[in-house]
Amino acid sequence: MSLPLAIGVDIGGSKLRAALVDRNGSVLRRAHTQTDAAGGPAAVIAQISGLLEELEARLEADRILGVGIAAPGPIDTITGVALGVPTLAGWDNVPIVAMLREALGVPVRLENDGIAAAHGERLFGAGRGTANMVYVTVSTGIGGGIILDGRLLHGHQGLAGHVGHMTIVRDGEPCVCGNTGCWEAYASGTAFTKRARERYGRPDDALDARWVFAAARSGDAVAVDLVREEADFLGLGIVNLAHLFSPEIIVIGGGMANDFDLVRDGIAARLRDCAMPAFRRTVVAPAELGDNSGLIGAAALFFSGHAAAPAAVEATL
Amino acid sequence: MSLPLAIGVDIGGSKLRAALVDRNGSVLRRAHTQTDAAGGPAAVIAQISGLLEELEARLEADRILGVGIAAPGPIDTITGVALGVPTLAGWDNVPIVAMLREALGVPVRLENDGIAAAHGERLFGAGRGTANMVYVTVSTGIGGGIILDGRLLHGHQGLAGHVGHMTIVRDGEPCVCGNTGCWEAYASGTAFTKRARERYGRPDDALDARWVFAAARSGDAVAVDLVREEADFLGLGIVNLAHLFSPEIIVIGGGMANDFDLVRDGIAARLRDCAMPAFRRTVVAPAELGDNSGLIGAAALFFSGHAAAPAAVEATL
Repeated sequence: MSLPLAIGVDIGGSKLRAALVDRNGSVLRRAHTQTDAAGGPAAVIAQISGLLEELEARLEADRILGVGIAAPGPIDTITGVALGVPTLAGWDNVPIVAMLREALGVPVRLENDGIAAAHGERLFGAGRGTANMVYVTVSTGIGGGIILDGRLLHGHQGLAGHVGHMTIVRDGEPCVCGNTGCWEAYASGTAFTKRARERYGRPDDALDARWVFAAARSGDAVAVDLVREEADFLGLGIVNLAHLFSPEIIVIGGGMANDFDLVRDGIAARLRDCAMPAFRRTVVAPAELGDNSGLIGAAALFFSGHAAAPAAVEATL
Repeated sequence: MSLPLAIGVDIGGSKLRAALVDRNGSVLRRAHTQTDAAGGPAAVIAQISGLLEELEARLEADRILGVGIAAPGPIDTITGVALGVPTLAGWDNVPIVAMLREALGVPVRLENDGIAAAHGERLFGAGRGTANMVYVTVSTGIGGGIILDGRLLHGHQGLAGHVGHMTIVRDGEPCVCGNTGCWEAYASGTAFTKRARERYGRPDDALDARWVFAAARSGDAVAVDLVREEADFLGLGIVNLAHLFSPEIIVIGGGMANDFDLVRDGIAARLRDCAMPAFRRTVVAPAELGDNSGLIGAAALFFSGHAAAPAAVEATL
């Protein structure tokens, strides 16, 4: 008998991606398009249908367990209703899971993109074999997903893990969320690039995070200093996450994973100097699935007995 | 048949307390003594034996399901080994659960005191009926315990929930943990009292948190301002907890619960102004079990099918 398969879909603000994934976490086939962010949910659902046709064409439908969707928050993944997604127009109080089931005619599971990526990294990436893992994606913003005691954490409405929006500097820098001093406002790729442009006096687009990391690799003193500072901001939030969740490992995904070797020591120094003794040995490692953590994790919602809604609530008296 | 009973024990740095608790969370009988903090684990275990004798004297042993122990961290509640408890001498790498089972001759469960208190408040206090709750105790320090998706969170070594040691002010006030800028260093009873003594220019012991709250109630402008500031610091950390865990309710215990009515509005304002829309309706409420959250929660480890170690780790491939 052939291995069961599932389809993962990642709804990004700019890119809509789908992949056919097997039970070993291998991507067999992929498809993508530009997200019709302005078209509303119906347009995006039609796009997903199109991608699935492309993927399924050469395959027997009976091997496919279902379609797992990773979507940006806030979406209530317990009830399957979008609460209003800033990057997608018209996604307010839309029963997205019901609409997808109807449109696709297959089982559908929806997960917050950070939580889906955490699931992928735990099953097939840097978190293999751990029961307690925090996944942090550091790109334009900072998001995340948490696995504790061997289970994905959802919280009320499935919204646990908005790690980018913990205040680390009271009355600090303004954040896109409207608050000030958020971790995201200091340690995201956006914040890093902003500091770099200021330091170099070059507000042009060519000066991005990759450029700074490359400059640091070639010994540029300003870049080295910017990277040191970035590692320190990352480490500060990571110490918080260690104290709050007590993970064995904190996995860093997103764009920052590409240059993780340059921030590793600075993060380790923060942990050593600032965490309480019991938390100092927390492992911090780069994601291993690259851009595919969320895509693979979404498909893998069908591989692990995982349900988006908590399977059972502990019996109370 | 009579209702099953369990014994809860709370090992404090100064006070050692025990209570006989029924399945409704009612304390039937209690006993306490000064903790022999300098005597090492053997001395404390002997003290616990003494308290249990006192409690059990008039009761049939066969109604008692076991002894639940709430102890200050860091204790690895998964393996039952104390990792070194700052407030208790000689509690380093001691297999405390095995020693207790041997000494007491009954089933023993051990839980971090913050987690035990969360369990108590969830079953019998302010968190009744919720599946997602963060408990925060604000007294000398700030501790906590988290229930998410209907389950107590433990994390690696059972150390999840050290909420007092998230940095909220980079390079801020020194904290007893050795780090700087921790929530505890700003919002604990100790920090509140310290600010009050500075503001009034009165470094004497009579000026404590209760005094300031009483002064605020009688309209003293300095006290009102101190309380406003305290509520703001509390609210800042509470917004972080909302984003990180997505609880339905955040329960405030410890000394701060006594005057919660004075900080409620300030906390609500922070949530309204600083949390992302989906998190603004998080309920914040005072604990209902007073000093007994941990004691009752420890006993209740025997009432809910709860085991300190995760019952099962989600199957991976």
